[in-house]
Amino acid sequence: MAAQGSGLIARIVVTPRRDVLDPQGAAVQGALASLGFEEVSRVRIGRFMEVELHTDDRVVAEQRVHKMCEQLLANPVVEDFSFELTTRGTGA
Amino acid sequence: MAAQGSGLIARIVVTPRRDVLDPQGAAVQGALASLGFEEVSRVRIGRFMEVELHTDDRVVAEQRVHKMCEQLLANPVVEDFSFELTTRGTGA
Repeated sequence: MAAQGSGLIARIVVTPRRDVLDPQGAAVQGALASLGFEEVSRVRIGRFMEVELHTDDRVVAEQRVHKMCEQLLANPVVEDFSFELTTRGTGA
Repeated sequence: MAAQGSGLIARIVVTPRRDVLDPQGAAVQGALASLGFEEVSRVRIGRFMEVELHTDDRVVAEQRVHKMCEQLLANPVVEDFSFELTTRGTGA
């Protein structure tokens, strides 16, 4: 909030847990097979989110993004999440 | 498809193009702000897909996954896609 600088970007991936049914993934796998992509043995569908932050403090950002995932962005009962932080502008 | 071995996994990210409106992202940003995450300056929402392949040939897999994205998994008019291939089982 008081931080000046380029800021950080969190790239978040949310996926259904391995043991949870993923009917959307099964539908996409069927569609791929009907298009001739028969080498596909499984498809899992998740969400991707890019969150830009007004802070350059990676330690704080990591804690905050973890909380965002737990409170809003993912449903911990049926989903897993992971994220990485990159510096805005440089892509690294 | 004659390939034997552990197989490959494509981890695909599809995002709205930078110049395309993302109302879902704006809604999530508003929800985060109302939860106190006011350091968030922007949210973009995309899709994540994990596609398991019965092949160990990375060159072929790269071409095939690119085609899958163009034909079904992404809408090139309004979306960008990127992916990486990992070896099944090892995560690398």
